[in-house]
Amino acid sequence: MLDTNRPVPPGVTEDALDRALAAIAAAIGDDKVATDAGSLADFQDPFQFPGSARNVPCGVVSPRTVEEVQAIVRIANEHCVPLWPVGRGKNNGYGGAAPQVRGTVMLSFRDMNRVLEIDEELGYAIVEPGVSWFDLDEAIQAGGHELVASIVDIGWGGVVSNTLEHGLTYMPYSIDQASHCGLEVVLPDGDLLRTGSGAMDGNPTWPLYKRGLGPTSTELFMQSNLGIVTKMGYWLMPKPEVYMPLWLQLWDDARMPDVVDALRELMLAGTIAMRPQLSNTLCMASMLTARADWYDGAGPMPVEVIDRIAKELGLGRWMMRFALYGDEAVVDHNFAKLKRRFESIPTVSVVGEKRGADEWRTLPNPHERVMIGVPSIDLYKMAGWSGGDEGGHVDFSPVIPLTAQHAKAAQDLFSRMCTDAGFDYLGGMLPINGRATTFINVIPFDTKDEAQVDAAYEHAKRMVATAGKLGYGEYRAHLSFMDLAADQFGFNDHVQRRFNEAIKDTLDPNGIIAPGKSGIWGTRLREAGFPQP
Amino acid sequence: MLDTNRPVPPGVTEDALDRALAAIAAAIGDDKVATDAGSLADFQDPFQFPGSARNVPCGVVSPRTVEEVQAIVRIANEHCVPLWPVGRGKNNGYGGAAPQVRGTVMLSFRDMNRVLEIDEELGYAIVEPGVSWFDLDEAIQAGGHELVASIVDIGWGGVVSNTLEHGLTYMPYSIDQASHCGLEVVLPDGDLLRTGSGAMDGNPTWPLYKRGLGPTSTELFMQSNLGIVTKMGYWLMPKPEVYMPLWLQLWDDARMPDVVDALRELMLAGTIAMRPQLSNTLCMASMLTARADWYDGAGPMPVEVIDRIAKELGLGRWMMRFALYGDEAVVDHNFAKLKRRFESIPTVSVVGEKRGADEWRTLPNPHERVMIGVPSIDLYKMAGWSGGDEGGHVDFSPVIPLTAQHAKAAQDLFSRMCTDAGFDYLGGMLPINGRATTFINVIPFDTKDEAQVDAAYEHAKRMVATAGKLGYGEYRAHLSFMDLAADQFGFNDHVQRRFNEAIKDTLDPNGIIAPGKSGIWGTRLREAGFPQP
Repeated sequence: MLDTNRPVPPGVTEDALDRALAAIAAAIGDDKVATDAGSLADFQDPFQFPGSARNVPCGVVSPRTVEEVQAIVRIANEHCVPLWPVGRGKNNGYGGAAPQVRGTVMLSFRDMNRVLEIDEELGYAIVEPGVSWFDLDEAIQAGGHELVASIVDIGWGGVVSNTLEHGLTYMPYSIDQASHCGLEVVLPDGDLLRTGSGAMDGNPTWPLYKRGLGPTSTELFMQSNLGIVTKMGYWLMPKPEVYMPLWLQLWDDARMPDVVDALRELMLAGTIAMRPQLSNTLCMASMLTARADWYDGAGPMPVEVIDRIAKELGLGRWMMRFALYGDEAVVDHNFAKLKRRFESIPTVSVVGEKRGADEWRTLPNPHERVMIGVPSIDLYKMAGWSGGDEGGHVDFSPVIPLTAQHAKAAQDLFSRMCTDAGFDYLGGMLPINGRATTFINVIPFDTKDEAQVDAAYEHAKRMVATAGKLGYGEYRAHLSFMDLAADQFGFNDHVQRRFNEAIKDTLDPNGIIAPGKSGIWGTRLREAGFPQP
Repeated sequence: MLDTNRPVPPGVTEDALDRALAAIAAAIGDDKVATDAGSLADFQDPFQFPGSARNVPCGVVSPRTVEEVQAIVRIANEHCVPLWPVGRGKNNGYGGAAPQVRGTVMLSFRDMNRVLEIDEELGYAIVEPGVSWFDLDEAIQAGGHELVASIVDIGWGGVVSNTLEHGLTYMPYSIDQASHCGLEVVLPDGDLLRTGSGAMDGNPTWPLYKRGLGPTSTELFMQSNLGIVTKMGYWLMPKPEVYMPLWLQLWDDARMPDVVDALRELMLAGTIAMRPQLSNTLCMASMLTARADWYDGAGPMPVEVIDRIAKELGLGRWMMRFALYGDEAVVDHNFAKLKRRFESIPTVSVVGEKRGADEWRTLPNPHERVMIGVPSIDLYKMAGWSGGDEGGHVDFSPVIPLTAQHAKAAQDLFSRMCTDAGFDYLGGMLPINGRATTFINVIPFDTKDEAQVDAAYEHAKRMVATAGKLGYGEYRAHLSFMDLAADQFGFNDHVQRRFNEAIKDTLDPNGIIAPGKSGIWGTRLREAGFPQP
């Protein structure tokens, strides 16, 4: 059923909305405010069944300066019009660049995409929220800096928005998602805050020291709707003498937990000091081929086919990409050590080759370029596993301890649930640190098949609730079940939500910044019936 | 002038205070509430001139359980009696275990000192807020765990309280003060929050993953008065194959900035992956001897005497203690590399010796035990530099970029200010990470000499204000000039303070938790005239 009514925010008349949009246009320019269908098409979940979305925006505004962001926020407050900030407009697999509330005005940072500073001596950049991984890389190259940035798999995303979503990158600084330092934030009333050392005028340690004096609010603005981030410090690593991308293959699925134990030992010992990506056969295959290349039956792919894919693509039943960085002597020692440890597990092999800086940008395998900070979109193919160009996916990503016992329990549960729901099981682990790992479940579907789309989203929701009962919480939630994911964090009668909403009501009494983000609504919208059933 | 009036909190009658103390005694036991002078003697700045303090408490209460903490907070709220939580009761150099407001009830955690859990596989402990560094070490040894804890110089302090103060430890996890993971917090209304993954019941990643879903509030409770921490996760490192304590000596004071540049390079390259301690001659000498052993003149010690100390104690004009941890082959490579780099600077030498685990606990030099997690109080001598057993110190600790340029500017300024004020210059750098360093200034004085005590505190205040104008903020503030230190963070009309106080008013409308901490008072106490001139 196609929705043709104009989306208007709750409790706001069309007149008030028009006045708000006109006031914003007066403040930032007519050409920076759009309400036409073409301009809004990007701001919805790209994988939902066409026309089924209720959470559609009413307009998009594109400020160019912090002062314009402040002006927009003040106007939005005056008219109770919700705003949803968007960096580069991706977030695929987690609901896309869509709002939670119908009639929201999207605040796009496409026109605030400047790399404001790169400091080679101290190894950092200060970036605006519209800077993509490509933009950052371009600025590093243009300046000739001997620095590398820890990046994501698909280079079109935003540095700030990925960081704010607790997003995962892969190089050493990505451990504990700790690459950022210092935020500038427009508060919901239009005031301007700088976190950490930035709270002092002219403090040169704003992008160097994560704290200041007193409580630190940086993490309060991540996965959050308490403010709009307009600047961020991002640490860049001096180029290592040697980069050695590595590949581990495991042919016996039942030995995966042993690999996890070895990985924990090696990460806690500092031998592996980056974020590995341990993927099962189908997860790896989805980045290289499509499902239809192998099998055209309905329901989950049979084990025999998976075995055939594992062999024909030379993947193994599990494959881990990872890397070493550093002085050649240290890399050599660590490689010998980790190879010995991993290969003590039956059916495991580890290979890799040392690379000097002159080779990094032209490595043929995009995985190997990503791990040294060279962005591309070559790994985007995954979305096409089921349905080709019309393929989509919804991701469920709980965090579990990095132990054999938990990895086995999670794998048994998630694979069984996928099979029961009729989906292929694409799973992978991306450790947060040497102690905990995200266990990513990519649920692929054909976006043209409404029943399959519905089944995928329902399956994902069941996984969220089932995992929550076992104490596994999502590191990042899909827009379509953000409230459900937040509900799982129920300690002491949902004190976290009550705490977050008390702060929300204080800073944003009208609830205009990203209402519903991470299940935080605030009193005004809860009283207006949100979250909607 | 000795103060003999009973300390009563602002706006509270003696009757109301008595009723509050009686209610607390009924809740936690008579023997856990004390108001006698003997019991209160520990809860003041040990280095202030006797009898001069206005910020004296009216009582001390010692809960044994989280429920008792909740009960105390609820009673305190009912009667508007301020509480000041204290871990082990130290904080020397920063004002001691004293409150900011006269008549405060001290909430001592001496009876909540259990190590609740140690997990060897995942490398963490969960501790109560009264656990000292000695207690933690004892629990690790008693359990026979192959783990080491990153600790402070003086083992009598508290693990939780030091961490909450952004305190510095020395082993690899101390970089970015990142050893903690997950807090349990009694909120000002008595409610109980768990931060990060602890917001989900039974989530095993509470002490493993620093975040959960949505904004993370952990850092909001550090250097803070927004809640009372009752449990904390603390990461423990697997024992390295080799530990190699190292000593760098520099004989030419003018070359200190070159050492700072080399240190930054080596830390950013990962060659040095812990917190070094770079101290000038007098700072090192104060841990070994007393001023009177060398000089009995008034005013700052002449350079000739400093040179003589440097030579006779074999210290150099600057001395750095640091260490390598890891596999022997890696330690060997890194030692050769850093020795080559540092010794390229004229008058620098680096020495060290590799140590196996059987030697760590009995190393003769307490500095070398501290860097591998063996606590003692052998390094406490510093306080006696001026005045012997009656010696005291006040510390001023700004954060600066870890560059030659900033190190030289800071050193020139701070040493000149010390000379002008008539104090010996005891300075040292303890890097936060490879990009920023604390620049600790220890101002020593004789606590029996009232004029010298006053001069030391006035000198420290002048340094805070002067450094603030240059953009250098304190990482940790002394109680006697906490408001002044917080005032330096004045970006955008002190938005940080306004932001903190908005949250304070929401969570703690009566302002009962540690009023004045980090310059955060809240509306009720500001309207009652705080901070007092």
